[in-house]
Amino acid sequence: MPIDLRLDPAEVPLLNDLYEFTVSAAFFERGMNAQACFDVGVRRLAANRGYMVMAGVERVLEVLENFRFEEPALAHLDSLGLFKPDFLDFLRRFRFTGTVRAMPEGSLFFAGETVMEVRGPLIEAQIMEPIVLNQLGIASVLATKAARCYSVGAGRRLVEFGLRRAQGADAGLVAARSSYLAGFHGTSDVLGGRRYGIPVFGTMSHSFVMAHEGERRAFEDFARSFPKLSTVLVDTYDTLRGVHNTVAVARKLKDEGISIQAIRLDSGNLEQLSKQSRRILDEAGFHDVAIFASGNLDEYKVADLLKVGSPIDAFGIGTALTTSDDAPAADYTYKLSEYDGRPRLKTSAGKVSLPGRKQIFRALDASGRYRGDIVGLIDESVLMVKREFRPEPDRVVPMLEVMLENGNRVLPRPSLAESRERFMKSFEAVDPRHKAIRNPDPYPVKQSAALGAMIISEKLRAETLQD
Amino acid sequence: MPIDLRLDPAEVPLLNDLYEFTVSAAFFERGMNAQACFDVGVRRLAANRGYMVMAGVERVLEVLENFRFEEPALAHLDSLGLFKPDFLDFLRRFRFTGTVRAMPEGSLFFAGETVMEVRGPLIEAQIMEPIVLNQLGIASVLATKAARCYSVGAGRRLVEFGLRRAQGADAGLVAARSSYLAGFHGTSDVLGGRRYGIPVFGTMSHSFVMAHEGERRAFEDFARSFPKLSTVLVDTYDTLRGVHNTVAVARKLKDEGISIQAIRLDSGNLEQLSKQSRRILDEAGFHDVAIFASGNLDEYKVADLLKVGSPIDAFGIGTALTTSDDAPAADYTYKLSEYDGRPRLKTSAGKVSLPGRKQIFRALDASGRYRGDIVGLIDESVLMVKREFRPEPDRVVPMLEVMLENGNRVLPRPSLAESRERFMKSFEAVDPRHKAIRNPDPYPVKQSAALGAMIISEKLRAETLQD
Repeated sequence: MPIDLRLDPAEVPLLNDLYEFTVSAAFFERGMNAQACFDVGVRRLAANRGYMVMAGVERVLEVLENFRFEEPALAHLDSLGLFKPDFLDFLRRFRFTGTVRAMPEGSLFFAGETVMEVRGPLIEAQIMEPIVLNQLGIASVLATKAARCYSVGAGRRLVEFGLRRAQGADAGLVAARSSYLAGFHGTSDVLGGRRYGIPVFGTMSHSFVMAHEGERRAFEDFARSFPKLSTVLVDTYDTLRGVHNTVAVARKLKDEGISIQAIRLDSGNLEQLSKQSRRILDEAGFHDVAIFASGNLDEYKVADLLKVGSPIDAFGIGTALTTSDDAPAADYTYKLSEYDGRPRLKTSAGKVSLPGRKQIFRALDASGRYRGDIVGLIDESVLMVKREFRPEPDRVVPMLEVMLENGNRVLPRPSLAESRERFMKSFEAVDPRHKAIRNPDPYPVKQSAALGAMIISEKLRAETLQD
Repeated sequence: MPIDLRLDPAEVPLLNDLYEFTVSAAFFERGMNAQACFDVGVRRLAANRGYMVMAGVERVLEVLENFRFEEPALAHLDSLGLFKPDFLDFLRRFRFTGTVRAMPEGSLFFAGETVMEVRGPLIEAQIMEPIVLNQLGIASVLATKAARCYSVGAGRRLVEFGLRRAQGADAGLVAARSSYLAGFHGTSDVLGGRRYGIPVFGTMSHSFVMAHEGERRAFEDFARSFPKLSTVLVDTYDTLRGVHNTVAVARKLKDEGISIQAIRLDSGNLEQLSKQSRRILDEAGFHDVAIFASGNLDEYKVADLLKVGSPIDAFGIGTALTTSDDAPAADYTYKLSEYDGRPRLKTSAGKVSLPGRKQIFRALDASGRYRGDIVGLIDESVLMVKREFRPEPDRVVPMLEVMLENGNRVLPRPSLAESRERFMKSFEAVDPRHKAIRNPDPYPVKQSAALGAMIISEKLRAETLQD
């Protein structure tokens, strides 16, 4: 079997930065392993992003619950010649025994917010940094890109088509899941469909047409083999002639009770071609043959196509979606906010972190719309914080929920369908001006007075830490 | 163990687009399974790219050699309700029995060139499309980005630091391998180091400093734990005070025979800070303490920093590298070029493919420099093609080598070190004007007269295929 294109669960703890092990070993040597809190969040949103969609939480929780160093991994660490036997023994017994609070998958979040808190003995929480960031990062970056497509799709069917151009095998799988979470109808990826129970869609390859000695023959062959799944690809040669050939084949097969479901346009001017194709199909009486469009699409192009009334029923979105090409990474960080009962912050230029354990308080109006968020401290009450919103909102909801306690799940794992439902509701609750795909208005996020006071006092304290 | 963050080898055949199975089933039903040839290549290079670096070949070959449908995969395909038992039986016996020709890893290639040819019975070659594109794509996109960093690094030590922001687990691993292939010195990723034998590097986390009650104490603790690996992170609070604290700690530890190897700058104005830090270190007599810089670096910033003489000895490059943020995908295609002995092409608007089996002929001058490439047909001789270059070059080298025959390897697998060596030589052989990181001159690639004639005749034939 292909051994390099695999990820064995026992390898996961080593999918890690070397410094996580060296700083952990140094902590271990000094006996520094008191309770620590790390905040996960995005400092700044990427260009044209007014929000992000939380995703990847379920995988991260699963990783934390099951993080074990098996003997081959320990032997490898030993082979580096950096670690003492007692530290390796410590890793041999390592379990994540801490607490994780997070926004549930499908939540919308904004810059400067804690979206996950990993709390536990310092070394346990430290060593999770790369895998937490790697997995929340890709899943939420792709869910966010998908939500942007969903936001302009106006109810059209959206299918994730990007496995072949995704950044590796894992990204391909995550793309299928994250795009379904954020409103897509399905994926072309069979394994994504299998793992996550997502509907799978497929059309036809150019090679299918090219291997035949004529386009009509290709269409007919395919429709006979898949009378319930026959989307024919009409752009291998001349697109409009391909549409006429579709009509000819559809007429021929009609008498046999076989119908063609859709044509797929994959190149050229999709506005013109979709309008011309619709006319050809309609004039021939094939009103029910749908038009499926693909070919370097993204949210910007889908919006433009629909604005000019292109009669496209479904979009296949690939590369731009599965790589989030205009913003392939988010500015995620994993920052120590408390250690041994004391708040902690860093004051690096342009990269100041926020001290203390947080809660994100979201204000809702009477109709359930989001009005703004406050980043506050965990021990602040909803009632206290509610007064800091102006005007006072109908309701304030704390966004971070306890998900792991003592290393074990406390909430039942939501199904992907439930998380998708949560996404749709959250998305609806955000004002359209924050959801514009170009230059959205920033959603209001501010810090609570209590957090503000803590920042000031901790900055003063930080001054003394370099003496 | 974490079950979702894994890729089981038995799942690989399902990491595939649904249409690969439906078109294969339709081919199967018609008995269409004659010899087919698919060309893999990049139609257009992304912005600011003058070349790409071939990578991912070894993994692709391994996948093809080991592609098997096991019972759970077959049961899943059966559950889709689309496939007949005899097709599933066919998949049960499926092996890739064909031939693969490709440019070896580390080769430089250009737009419009065939970089891999997958040839075999139609269905065998068809079904490999997504995994071949997915894996060659990520590996060569990241190798190309790494080569760009290498091209401006002027011999400085470059370390891949981007696991945490890579697009998933697989991309993290590929990033480690591809960047080493293209001239990096190592990676922070322990698993990447283990799998591929790449040197691993690590510095220190901000949390290490923040968990301590003082910066000097943190530096001292770390240096005592890792007297051979102590790069201290000086920007948690005020960077220059951090450098002075490094000096103080280095002085204290000197008497005990412990030295600090480097400081790491991770924020702020790296030019100014590196110059100021160098001065502080030098004035204190610590000429041998190196300066390591990181923090949202890419090839553009590294070039700018070195142009103004920043005394930086090593760079840690993360997000921009491991996502290839300015060009996260390449325009890779997998196109049928021959079926059943006949050349094939598509004529889609802006996406015309090239018919026939190819060879890439590269002209070299007396000193081994690349002069230009010709995309020709496989049966053209080097002697014939040589005359098509003007002026006639010293030497013409065919770039595509047979790697699999009858589904088995014919060449010994090169080591990563050998491929890295090949990259360095290839890179050296390309004229600097094609390697500029901004607006490079296009490298000359033309089609042979024989291929040109075939294109004309096949376009004429394509006209008839829609009648």
